[in-house]
Amino acid sequence: MPDKPQIFVTNDDGINAPGLATLVDSMKQFGELVIIAPKNAMSGVGHAITLRKTIEVEQTNHFDGIPSFALDGTPADCVKYAMAQYYKSPPDLLVSGINHGSNASVNMIYSGTVAAAVEGALYGVSSIAFSSISYQEDADLSAVVEIAKEMVARVILNPIPRFTLWNVNVPDIKKEDLKGYRFCRQSLAHWKEEFIEQANFNGKQSFWLRGDFICDDKDDTTDIWALENGYASIVPVYLDFTRHSYLEELKKIYSNEKK
Amino acid sequence: MPDKPQIFVTNDDGINAPGLATLVDSMKQFGELVIIAPKNAMSGVGHAITLRKTIEVEQTNHFDGIPSFALDGTPADCVKYAMAQYYKSPPDLLVSGINHGSNASVNMIYSGTVAAAVEGALYGVSSIAFSSISYQEDADLSAVVEIAKEMVARVILNPIPRFTLWNVNVPDIKKEDLKGYRFCRQSLAHWKEEFIEQANFNGKQSFWLRGDFICDDKDDTTDIWALENGYASIVPVYLDFTRHSYLEELKKIYSNEKK
Repeated sequence: MPDKPQIFVTNDDGINAPGLATLVDSMKQFGELVIIAPKNAMSGVGHAITLRKTIEVEQTNHFDGIPSFALDGTPADCVKYAMAQYYKSPPDLLVSGINHGSNASVNMIYSGTVAAAVEGALYGVSSIAFSSISYQEDADLSAVVEIAKEMVARVILNPIPRFTLWNVNVPDIKKEDLKGYRFCRQSLAHWKEEFIEQANFNGKQSFWLRGDFICDDKDDTTDIWALENGYASIVPVYLDFTRHSYLEELKKIYSNEKK
Repeated sequence: MPDKPQIFVTNDDGINAPGLATLVDSMKQFGELVIIAPKNAMSGVGHAITLRKTIEVEQTNHFDGIPSFALDGTPADCVKYAMAQYYKSPPDLLVSGINHGSNASVNMIYSGTVAAAVEGALYGVSSIAFSSISYQEDADLSAVVEIAKEMVARVILNPIPRFTLWNVNVPDIKKEDLKGYRFCRQSLAHWKEEFIEQANFNGKQSFWLRGDFICDDKDDTTDIWALENGYASIVPVYLDFTRHSYLEELKKIYSNEKK
């Protein structure tokens, strides 16, 4: 293994996103970086992968001196490409972001930023997704940078267990106003959607999707509580999605009987 | 509530897929159906949602007499549209599939079929994703139909708890050879990918993504064991992704201290 930690950087807002540049800058001090990010913005792409067409990869010079590539695909594709094609042995760390917009609670389901960290966790790489809850492109990311540096320093010393990642979200406040961070559980919530009709032509209706985030699960052990109270939230996410307690109930009710 | 159960049907292989037609046929006896499915095949689309363009919806006559719509978007979009726009009150059941190809183990991460059931679970609807592990378009789906009927009959009597869904996979065998079903936990596994170079032109390389499924976690409590031993696997999936035991460790190590 090389002396310096090998750090892979990606995102879902694309190779040109200011959040990626900020993350790259904040990671330089920790190790040797490689950046492979989607060519185009991929918000809301979730864990999509590219199966029905070829994937184009091109070296870029966005980050002078640091190897960087634009990939015409999804964040999950970027990680797969990095692990299968670029690295000879897996890197020590994967960081994804900085995303503009909350990936707390169930929002992680829709998140390409988190999907990249999920891929890293599948490959056994300590992986962290960073998001600011501000949707503004010019959001002040200084608080995210502070938390990112602190968490990465920790994870380099204590790697994250396999099949697990950290989902980090940071409130939309200045670095000075951040109260700290909380390790917390994910709130259970949902979106209440509306489809706003834009056109109705020849039997085809067109809609814009919009929604309101509905969350009643926000006691002080949750990520939503942390974010609403001035803390960064860090949720350790596990890729065993089984509801174990309910599984035991089901086994009792149906006793895994033969049909 | 109407007398008959209201059953929403969707998939990720698109409105024309034989798996959808088979599922619709097998569900008719259980209640009143509505079908809203992607206009185009959406495999590997994961939990993508459509945020950057309008979503077009068109009534179809694929399933004579049954209300059905083709939506130019993802499986998750279809469910959001159904819940927000079509139904006045949520249906009793959502079924998604029948997918061609395994969504067992970590494959559910990439699955539009499962993403649709996740959306249903977020809305509080009892939701089940059905997949055959055969990737063949002309696969014999009789075993899936048998399991689907049995499970739907059960869920109509005992709804699935909120924020939980059933991920059902069925081996590629004839109905007569199916040994039964097992409620089980999700195997932890990953894909070992290869990027097969197709072209290298002007500094742009193009690749096809392919992979091998690597699974060392297959004791007899897992979905992979069930499928390899002639049983349908039913994994109850929970939308709280927190790794709670590790969270408690993290809280101890870092004691949720103030920065």
